[in-house]
Amino acid sequence: MFRSILVSCQRNSQIPNIISEMTETTQTNDDTNMSEFGLIARLAESTASSDTVDSQSVLVGIGDDAAVVSTPSGPMLLTTDAIVDGVHFRSVDERWFDVGWKCAVSNLSDIAAMGGVPDHALVTLGVPQGASIETYDEFYSGMNRAFEKFGGQVVGGDVVSSPTMFVNLALTGHPSLDAAGNSAWLERSAAQVNDLVCVTGPLGGSAGGLEILLSGDSNPSGQILIERHYRPRPRIRLGSQLVEAGVVCAMDISDGLVGDIEKLASASSVEITIEIPRIPITSELVFMFGNSAIELALSGGEDYELVFTAPQSVVENLSGEVKQEISVIGRVSGEGPTGGKVVVIDENGETYQPIRKGWDHLNV
Amino acid sequence: MFRSILVSCQRNSQIPNIISEMTETTQTNDDTNMSEFGLIARLAESTASSDTVDSQSVLVGIGDDAAVVSTPSGPMLLTTDAIVDGVHFRSVDERWFDVGWKCAVSNLSDIAAMGGVPDHALVTLGVPQGASIETYDEFYSGMNRAFEKFGGQVVGGDVVSSPTMFVNLALTGHPSLDAAGNSAWLERSAAQVNDLVCVTGPLGGSAGGLEILLSGDSNPSGQILIERHYRPRPRIRLGSQLVEAGVVCAMDISDGLVGDIEKLASASSVEITIEIPRIPITSELVFMFGNSAIELALSGGEDYELVFTAPQSVVENLSGEVKQEISVIGRVSGEGPTGGKVVVIDENGETYQPIRKGWDHLNV
Repeated sequence: MFRSILVSCQRNSQIPNIISEMTETTQTNDDTNMSEFGLIARLAESTASSDTVDSQSVLVGIGDDAAVVSTPSGPMLLTTDAIVDGVHFRSVDERWFDVGWKCAVSNLSDIAAMGGVPDHALVTLGVPQGASIETYDEFYSGMNRAFEKFGGQVVGGDVVSSPTMFVNLALTGHPSLDAAGNSAWLERSAAQVNDLVCVTGPLGGSAGGLEILLSGDSNPSGQILIERHYRPRPRIRLGSQLVEAGVVCAMDISDGLVGDIEKLASASSVEITIEIPRIPITSELVFMFGNSAIELALSGGEDYELVFTAPQSVVENLSGEVKQEISVIGRVSGEGPTGGKVVVIDENGETYQPIRKGWDHLNV
Repeated sequence: MFRSILVSCQRNSQIPNIISEMTETTQTNDDTNMSEFGLIARLAESTASSDTVDSQSVLVGIGDDAAVVSTPSGPMLLTTDAIVDGVHFRSVDERWFDVGWKCAVSNLSDIAAMGGVPDHALVTLGVPQGASIETYDEFYSGMNRAFEKFGGQVVGGDVVSSPTMFVNLALTGHPSLDAAGNSAWLERSAAQVNDLVCVTGPLGGSAGGLEILLSGDSNPSGQILIERHYRPRPRIRLGSQLVEAGVVCAMDISDGLVGDIEKLASASSVEITIEIPRIPITSELVFMFGNSAIELALSGGEDYELVFTAPQSVVENLSGEVKQEISVIGRVSGEGPTGGKVVVIDENGETYQPIRKGWDHLNV
């Protein structure tokens, strides 16, 4: 999912140091408050208590990257994701192709997180007065280009008037096949004690790119990070390869590494320990941000990489192609509390407290 | 789909006569302008010209009430619909259960319009600062109640921060079976010359209810119309019955009778003639609005009834149960221009020009 970093930026027209702003807004996971996760939990409760529930047809319900429902021909994946002007993008920037691309990628990444293959998309446009048709032509181009590259196609949609511009995408997909030829998928709740914790990478590039954009710095290293911000790539192919290799637990890194692993730990009721020196970051990020680079990698969202857990034997047997793309950054260190727990270890072996863990979409 | 009548209301805090406002805003169907239909047409063009298109898997694409895509187990229906605060509902009214109900019904009605059966829904919430969790609990209750009653269930969703409250639903479904036991569905583009034109009804009740709500009138007849406004019912069962009876052309009446029939005529390249005395309206609407009742029936949206066309022999063979629910209001009177054409005949046999034909979601 998209995160909401631009709200932080908008609160201060001086383009502040985002890292320092992050300290003000560390998220909580209290499901009774008005957090993103509280609202999702309440939706799950409300739906579960209603008579609508045909639980046999819902294989994975509310709370994972995508739902998995059964159909006569086998399981189907369903996901949805919205972007809002002033929250996830700024219309004043007029980067419509990029906004369209990223809108598609945020949904495609949810399918990748389940190890699935994208199929059909529906797009809803919330259109403010005075918007131009050229805006939407460019938006459509960017969105369709991402679908061309990674799979999926738009088959319908809706257009409504709205004071605030927004776009919602809903995307279907189907699961990949495991080594035995059966449909299988990746879930957040399937981590087991002693699993290794792995990520694709590098991480932090998108958040770094956004900071550079906002500062106006024109250093060439910065441009590489800006590209990471505007043109993230969903890990569709790698997700399928993980399913084929027997991996069963994964999610995408959209809201920040530590916060997202916390959700995975919570869904699996385990404790996870990760080590800072093992987290993949690019030389450009270190060059541009020095010691702050690791904070961007720990908490910056919108990288759309994958985090997964698997027994050591499964990780060792991954193909050479997959091994080149991943880093082992930690392990599932024990049974955890219901709320899940993530311990971050620094280069001295000490426990490290990230300044911010990730992004709650309602507390930015 | 929802229409946008509340924007008309908001423009004048005096709660004006909506009928007179309608004259200012008669919609155009020029696809090059910034209309809802122009934007949808451009999306269709952009998608068709992109390399994403696997046309074999798209049986009905952009522009009908729902898309129909092929899956290994047969065709699947996909639709999406959004509601926006200040456009489709007013948060200040705090009718959250009703808003949830109607949000579900507007999507369910798109499935009904295809003659299908609803399956799985995804809900996206755009949440403004200061919203309360109780608001969403009530919203969820109303939405789930509608799914309980008419089919379908929520299996996932997304939550994002937004200055303007909005909700998007995406809904899947599957087609009904025709008399031969094959999957079949209703399309806008399948009207044939000499078909009869039929509607379920009554019409205009929802728009009348909204006017009464805004005027504060407490007449009991008015309360029946208000109920029509807040608790519309999608014609799921009737849609299936039409498919079984061999009907192939239909859509739902969400934006206004004349405007919606114009879309059907346009999609089918035919001319349609309808007769005012045959349009079903309730005695409550006539009692409350007198001569204006017919205008509400011709242009008022959100009734979520169905309009369909079929040869006389098919209509005559409909079951008694279905016949009780429908009115024949006209016929497909000829081949039409590409843009479609609707002629309205009054009780004297004269051509009648409706003050407003329907609702374009971007020109309200």
